Amino acid sequence: MLALGRDARTGAEALRAATADQRTSAIRGMATSLRARAHLVFEANVADLAAATRHQDRLMLDPERIEAVAAGLDSVAALPDPVGAEIARWQRPNGLDIARVRTPIGVIGMIYEARPNVTADAAAICVRSGNAVILRPGSDCLASSRAIHAALAEGLEKAGLPASAVQIVPTGDRAAVGALLSGLGGTLDLLIPRGGRSLVERIESEARVPVLGHLEGVCHTYVHAAADPAMAAAIVRNAKLRRVSVCGSTETLLIDRGALSMLPAIAQALDGCELRGDAEAAAIVPMLPAHDEDWSAEYLAPILSIRTVSNWQEAASHIARYGTGHTEAIITDDAATAEAFLAAVDSAIVLWNASTQFADGGEFGFGAEIGIATGKLHARGPVGPEQLTSFKYVVRGNGQVRP
Amino acid sequence: MLALGRDARTGAEALRAATADQRTSAIRGMATSLRARAHLVFEANVADLAAATRHQDRLMLDPERIEAVAAGLDSVAALPDPVGAEIARWQRPNGLDIARVRTPIGVIGMIYEARPNVTADAAAICVRSGNAVILRPGSDCLASSRAIHAALAEGLEKAGLPASAVQIVPTGDRAAVGALLSGLGGTLDLLIPRGGRSLVERIESEARVPVLGHLEGVCHTYVHAAADPAMAAAIVRNAKLRRVSVCGSTETLLIDRGALSMLPAIAQALDGCELRGDAEAAAIVPMLPAHDEDWSAEYLAPILSIRTVSNWQEAASHIARYGTGHTEAIITDDAATAEAFLAAVDSAIVLWNASTQFADGGEFGFGAEIGIATGKLHARGPVGPEQLTSFKYVVRGNGQVRP
Repeated sequence: MLALGRDARTGAEALRAATADQRTSAIRGMATSLRARAHLVFEANVADLAAATRHQDRLMLDPERIEAVAAGLDSVAALPDPVGAEIARWQRPNGLDIARVRTPIGVIGMIYEARPNVTADAAAICVRSGNAVILRPGSDCLASSRAIHAALAEGLEKAGLPASAVQIVPTGDRAAVGALLSGLGGTLDLLIPRGGRSLVERIESEARVPVLGHLEGVCHTYVHAAADPAMAAAIVRNAKLRRVSVCGSTETLLIDRGALSMLPAIAQALDGCELRGDAEAAAIVPMLPAHDEDWSAEYLAPILSIRTVSNWQEAASHIARYGTGHTEAIITDDAATAEAFLAAVDSAIVLWNASTQFADGGEFGFGAEIGIATGKLHARGPVGPEQLTSFKYVVRGNGQVRP
Repeated sequence: MLALGRDARTGAEALRAATADQRTSAIRGMATSLRARAHLVFEANVADLAAATRHQDRLMLDPERIEAVAAGLDSVAALPDPVGAEIARWQRPNGLDIARVRTPIGVIGMIYEARPNVTADAAAICVRSGNAVILRPGSDCLASSRAIHAALAEGLEKAGLPASAVQIVPTGDRAAVGALLSGLGGTLDLLIPRGGRSLVERIESEARVPVLGHLEGVCHTYVHAAADPAMAAAIVRNAKLRRVSVCGSTETLLIDRGALSMLPAIAQALDGCELRGDAEAAAIVPMLPAHDEDWSAEYLAPILSIRTVSNWQEAASHIARYGTGHTEAIITDDAATAEAFLAAVDSAIVLWNASTQFADGGEFGFGAEIGIATGKLHARGPVGPEQLTSFKYVVRGNGQVRP
């Protein structure tokens, strides 16, 4: 593992010194190699799926999804290269010219579970931002991830960049995670965990290096009394059911007491979804009772918990207590209530009259994302190439000394 | 200590919910109280100084310096309030309106040594950015810091804000640092250590919460062969001697072999400064020999180490090996060499033809700073109120669902 870190440091230096065009060629080459090796990736994924006991939807890669991963690489290759970009530039009265310029972070460790596509997404976004990456997939998607990684390494080398810039931990055992947590002898600059709460919380509490946490999404949609009923039903349906396995799917519907009359239509729109509600909701639409653990559950399944609240403040309190700081929405035609809710709720993404499933870097216009960061430091919300850069100040003078 | 954390969380909520005007009033009130209590602060500082065995220059507060601290509070009060400010706002083709809005981080722990003025600077910058802060001064400046803190608490309460928003650890013992490192039961969002290498490295390796490290500044000035000799002498003099106890003071002069002819004039400009050089430098100007430990030393004293290098690449390699990622300068009239150096050196601040003593938030136009961050995550370089904010995405729609 320490050798992985040293090699990654060399890879990071090469990526930092490379031109934007070289980084683009490497990512395009990754896509080309992935398409050429799609059958190998598919075979590996069949093996992973055969061994899997859960999360099959996240794990599965059919030819269509492999093509989507390759297309994702192409779209990252087409993104503007952030390295060296000026974020700001200003002059001081003494004539000093100060520029704030994006720089790579260095070596990033990516720890994830069950989503083999993260292998390609994370690598491409790291290369685009000039960072080396050490990938640590969960054992459940190890075969698929290694098959994808072989294509990524080929793409790098064809572009004249060292394969050490994108490495994969060769085994699925837990000792590798411990080594990453310790920082690989000072070579790791940042760890990005993406997965369930136990994984992310373990990494946040044990890591000796900075962590950009991607916690699970216990997302909420709050239907206010002044909501448009048809809009409320359409948004709740989409927020819950469009794709139940994404982190931006709504897990809890908070319904205002004044909006309970909309609940039958909302329940009808949620056809096929199991509902678990409090007594007030269940009195209107027959459903299973919700228990305390439901309020903290990331179901990632066609299940929705429903809680009745008195007003937006109570909705915000529920979110502060049970949410994971990911994404929350309010549905209302009352602008003042909407703005109060948007200001008070301290989550990475807060929406008014839109589906929580818009929590996605592509939907935000970032082109691609490595995930949705739920901490408040460095990056928050969708993490794309720009969010994986640091910056430095470049100051140009003509002999200034400080009085 | 756990009670401190809980109280700080309450203070943070109050600060976040306060208006910008309330935060401004609190900081102005802090300045007023500090001026009214200046004699008490002075008496406490006399006691601290009497017990001190080192760093007296950093520790000392005379009436003039106390007034400067109060004036610093006034200047932070006059800064724009960052909370709620829109950093960016854009429309998506589907009509979604996305705004990136600054938010407070929450509760910040500030651990520092020997500089009682940090008590006021850190508190003001945290309040300006809507964050509660728990201050942990070193035992060497504890009495002065407590005297200053009493004024800060008074200012908060007069503005109708809870004193729990700015707290000070009541004792100088080391157990308090351990409690802060553990995160005070989940109430701390960020730790900012500011001090010597051993303090910062201990905190970075042991903390269970995110750390914004302010490492010592082993700063370099590189005099290139194409430097203007008079400018080189003036800048090196200022970079070393203007104030030797600041983190942006130059500790090592890297002199190009082709610039050795300028060394006598530079040495003359450094009158009163002890020089420690390699053999080539000592052959031109008599000086003490430099040893290996000199290249890593933050002297904070009128001592300068001098190393001869062959070219800018060798200067950059020396900086990468021995520097702390703080601030480095190149002096040259050759623009191509300057730009190559500015691009290659990965420090928070890189300067061309200017003194490293410009490493300061005020000089950058930030109005105030809590220090110079030397890590690459979240903030880098001078840390002012904007750098102590997070952000969230506020998305306004009119019924959008994701296809």
